[in-house]
Parts: sequence; C-alpha cells; structure tokens
Amino acid sequence: MNTDAALTIAITTGEPAGVGPELTAVALAHEVRKRWPEARFVVLGDRDLLQQCGLASAGDGIEIEHHALAVPVEIGKLNAANGCYVLNLLDVAIDGTLDGRFDAIVTAPLQKSTINDAGVPFTGHTEYLAERTNTPRVVMMLAGSSEKPLRVALATTHLPLKDVSAALSIDGLVETLQIIDHDLRAHFGLARPRILVTGLNPHAGENGYLGREEIDVITPALERARALGIDAPGPYPADTLFQLRYLKDTDCVLAMFHDQGLPVLKYATFGEGINVTLGLPIIRTSVDHGTALDLAGTGRADAGSMIAAIDAAVTMARHKRGV
Amino acid sequence: MNTDAALTIAITTGEPAGVGPELTAVALAHEVRKRWPEARFVVLGDRDLLQQCGLASAGDGIEIEHHALAVPVEIGKLNAANGCYVLNLLDVAIDGTLDGRFDAIVTAPLQKSTINDAGVPFTGHTEYLAERTNTPRVVMMLAGSSEKPLRVALATTHLPLKDVSAALSIDGLVETLQIIDHDLRAHFGLARPRILVTGLNPHAGENGYLGREEIDVITPALERARALGIDAPGPYPADTLFQLRYLKDTDCVLAMFHDQGLPVLKYATFGEGINVTLGLPIIRTSVDHGTALDLAGTGRADAGSMIAAIDAAVTMARHKRGV
Repeated sequence: MNTDAALTIAITTGEPAGVGPELTAVALAHEVRKRWPEARFVVLGDRDLLQQCGLASAGDGIEIEHHALAVPVEIGKLNAANGCYVLNLLDVAIDGTLDGRFDAIVTAPLQKSTINDAGVPFTGHTEYLAERTNTPRVVMMLAGSSEKPLRVALATTHLPLKDVSAALSIDGLVETLQIIDHDLRAHFGLARPRILVTGLNPHAGENGYLGREEIDVITPALERARALGIDAPGPYPADTLFQLRYLKDTDCVLAMFHDQGLPVLKYATFGEGINVTLGLPIIRTSVDHGTALDLAGTGRADAGSMIAAIDAAVTMARHKRGV
Repeated sequence: MNTDAALTIAITTGEPAGVGPELTAVALAHEVRKRWPEARFVVLGDRDLLQQCGLASAGDGIEIEHHALAVPVEIGKLNAANGCYVLNLLDVAIDGTLDGRFDAIVTAPLQKSTINDAGVPFTGHTEYLAERTNTPRVVMMLAGSSEKPLRVALATTHLPLKDVSAALSIDGLVETLQIIDHDLRAHFGLARPRILVTGLNPHAGENGYLGREEIDVITPALERARALGIDAPGPYPADTLFQLRYLKDTDCVLAMFHDQGLPVLKYATFGEGINVTLGLPIIRTSVDHGTALDLAGTGRADAGSMIAAIDAAVTMARHKRGV
C-alpha cells in the first residue's frame, strides 16, 4: 500500500436489478463527499447503468470503473445471466484490496440466488470473502452509524436455533474474542476495547438452573481471553446487558447467536446499521439490508445504511493507515 | 365485584429487605395519585416497615393493610424467617382479587430464595399465580409504559436455549395466541389486536434452509389461529420485525423465546418496562426488575417500572369493568 496515495475505497454495486447502484449514487452525491473530501471512491459496475442511476463521474474523487453487464437490466427483475457480473465485481474488489490498489471495500447488496442460478455455489458475501482470502475464521459484526455507536458481534451466525449450543466451543469463543479485540484496535482506533459478552440461556443460565453452557463453555473461554489481555466481562443476561447504563462503557457486545443480538441492534440503529466482517486481511463493510427489488427505481429506498457503510470504511481505513 | 365501589388495586410490597416497600411509597406519593384520583390503593405489608419507607396512609385513597413481619428487617439483608410473610402477602392479594375485594394486583419484587429457604417450593410469581388460580396456561408479556407502548409476549420463558425448539407445539402456540388475543381485548380495550409473530430461527428459517420449525410448527399454528379470527401475521425474522415501521401498526409481538424478545423490549422501554401475566382469571402486573438489595435504603432505586406497573393495573381494571 502506497500510503502517500489518496485513501481509495472500492464500492461494489452488487445486484444490478436491486437498489445497490442507486443507493451508491445517492450516498456519494450527498453526505459522503462532504465528510471525506480527501478520499477517492472507485465505483465498480456497468457505466451506463450507473449513469442511469444518477452517478456522476465528474472527476471530484468519484470514479466509475467500468465492468460491462452480460445482458441489459430490467430494474426489479433478477436475471441469472448477470450472476457472473456480480461475482466479478466482488473479485475485482478483493484482488484490488489485497494488491493495495484499494484501502477498503464497501459492498452493496447482492442476491445469492442470482449467483447460484448462474451455476456458482455462493452462500454469502462474508463466507466468500473468507474463502477468497484464506481466512479460517471471520466474525460478523453489526454496528450503528457514528452517532449511534452500538456494535454487536456474533459468536454464531446463520444456524438453526437448535444447533447453536453445540456450535459453541471454548476455542471458538477465544478466537472470536481475539479477532474482535484485534480489529477494534487496528481498524477502530480503540486502545483497549471492552467487549461485553452475553450468556447463551435466559438470565445467563441462573447458575446452571437454566442451562450449563455458561459454566462449561463461556466462562472458561472468558477466563482464557482475559489471561490474553482481552477486556471481556461476562457472561451477562442478554436482556439486562442491552441497556444504556451498561452499553455506555462498552465498545462491542458479543452475542451468542443471531436473534439474541440483532433485533436490538437493528431497533437501536434504525435503518443506519452496517455489517462489518472482522478477521479478514482486508477491510470490508456493507449495508445491513438486502436488494429490496420492490423499491428499486422508485427513489424510495433509504441510503442511510449505505452512507454509514462508506463512512465506516473510510474511518477504518484511516485507522489502519494511522492517519 | 361490586362495580359501584371504587376501583381497588392491591399492591404486594414483596421482599421486605429489598426495594419493593420504598418503590411502592415513591410511586404512590408521585404520579400515580394524580393520574388516578378515583382509585383506591391497598398496600399489603408491615405497617411499621412501610411507614419507615415513607408510605403515608393519609386517607387519600391509600390504605395500609397491616400484615406483621415475623422478625424485624435489616434493609438489604435477606432473612428466611420472613419467607412466609412474603408469601402470605401474595395469598391475601390473590384471594382478595378472586373474591372481588380487589380489581387487580400489582406485585413488587420478591426473592425466590427467601421463600425456598423457608421450606416452601416456589419457582416464581407467575407460576404461583397460575397454580393458585388453577390456570393451565399463562403467558408472560412485557410491555413499556403508556408512552412507550411496545409489548412482547413469549411463547416459551425460562428454558435452556437448546430445549426451546422441542417446547414449541402447534397446540401450544394456538393457545398462547388465544390468550393474548382474549386479554388484549378484555383488559387492554383493543377491538382487534394485531399480534406479529417471530420465527424461531435466523431469518425465520429462510424457507427451511436454516431450520424447519417455521414450516412444521409455527406456520400451521398461525393458520389455525387465523381461522379462529385472530390477527396473527408471521412468522417474520426477529431482526427485521422489531423496527418501528412494522411495530407502529402492531399491538403485541409474540417472540418464540426469552432472549429473542426481551433484550429489545428492555432496551426500548428503558427502565419503565412492566410484566403482565396473561391468561389468569385475575389481573396482575409487576415490575420488570428484581429486589435490588444493593440499592435498598439508598434512595437511588428508580420507581419508573413500579409507577408503570400500577398505571397498567388501573388501566386494565378499568377496561375489565368497562369504565
């Protein structure tokens, strides 16, 4: 990475029939340029499509890097013929970030089924990024915008609820905490991150009366993490922990599973939540919503999450560079 | 019930060493009397203790019904010798409500261990109320104050997380929805309650990819409930559902388990949440916190939840009477 070059953020515009291209255009036209006049944004996608969506490439730090659609897009209609186009944008962004051409990637939403229907197995951005960068473990963290700084990381993600208990292990939780601690220091500028950890069971198991995972797995993991210098108190009851008096001194909550942490995060961040993949060798942020095919082209989709995702990518990249 | 008599609310002051007595005094001294000048409040507990806690029984609609402590109380220190005193307050309130002497019960927090240490098996207020009133199924619902009207009912409560899936059944969910629907009509004055129902798994199972309970249990239960005239859409992903755009047209959310529904409820209601037991033949509301032994006597405990619990009991009793 040439640290004298302008900070450069790649934006993959994702599913061309969804809201990704237009939200990118809206986000860059408004807040983002004002906040980060020194940054350069390279928008990956089809030039004609992006210009139709209102993206002006006027040389003021916004650049369209043209990658042609395979077939023309009908807004709101998925077409597997463009599945490889979507995946290619992601590959270009990953390679460019690994090479040092980009400082970070922001991903607009894509539709898994379009890529699968094109014959390519694909389970999600996060898993694909892990695989393409040879990263054995990543951590999904959702966060609010800078004004609503709640952050929630997940110990498990997209598993049936009944499989969650068996998926937790001491080693896995220690690695997860190490990743969160490392990335909050390196990319968020936090000198000593404080990570509040939930229990798995109601009331964090009530001393074993409502489940034993707190005693057998979570507490031993936290002891080992603390011996490694990680500030990770817990396990605490999830319904008590998510209150402002506890959250105000906390940098991140580690929840044990998806629906324990995300309802409150999305309630609190109110359309401005973002998704960050921790543990990768590169910086990647994303919106926390889908392609919203029914809103595409109507002008009614809210760019709040896209603005917040770009904002976070720039902030994280600045911390990584040390500027 | 003599419906010409003043609306009468029994308040059990709970664990005498905890914050219950003082929060009752604070709640009645402030907002509650102003809001409900026509109601009568019968405070059950030891007269000397309650007067020390600042409860004035000045004939302005507040009456102390004296039940003597077994041994003197040291504030903040549990003593099993008073276990039967605590339980007796509850029995008096239940009998008085079944007899029509009271319109509703508000319970301050008690300490389960004090009652257990006195040799009486006791697993919680809710279970005890169900047993003493011969009610086969009750539903725990938490709610905000009247200014923050989010309501969350639970399909399962205090179970280890790994046992939740097996505890869900079509019959059980239909009964739960019938209880919620009935009580929201009878005690909350809602003509046609709308109950939004979550899935069990992340993203409500993603069409079976992340678990089958939505397909095998929840959806059939909702179909049967709708055939009974209950407005119960779902199952929806819990992280999407708890957003204001969905909640604004909703009277209650039915969450499948404790930590799916309560973190967001407690975050949103911010110290003013209450607990309501649905399905009983009597009206019962409660604070949503414990005895807070460390705060007892300091004057720092927040009466917000107690005020909201009394408020809700009066409102519900008025709806039941039709006034």
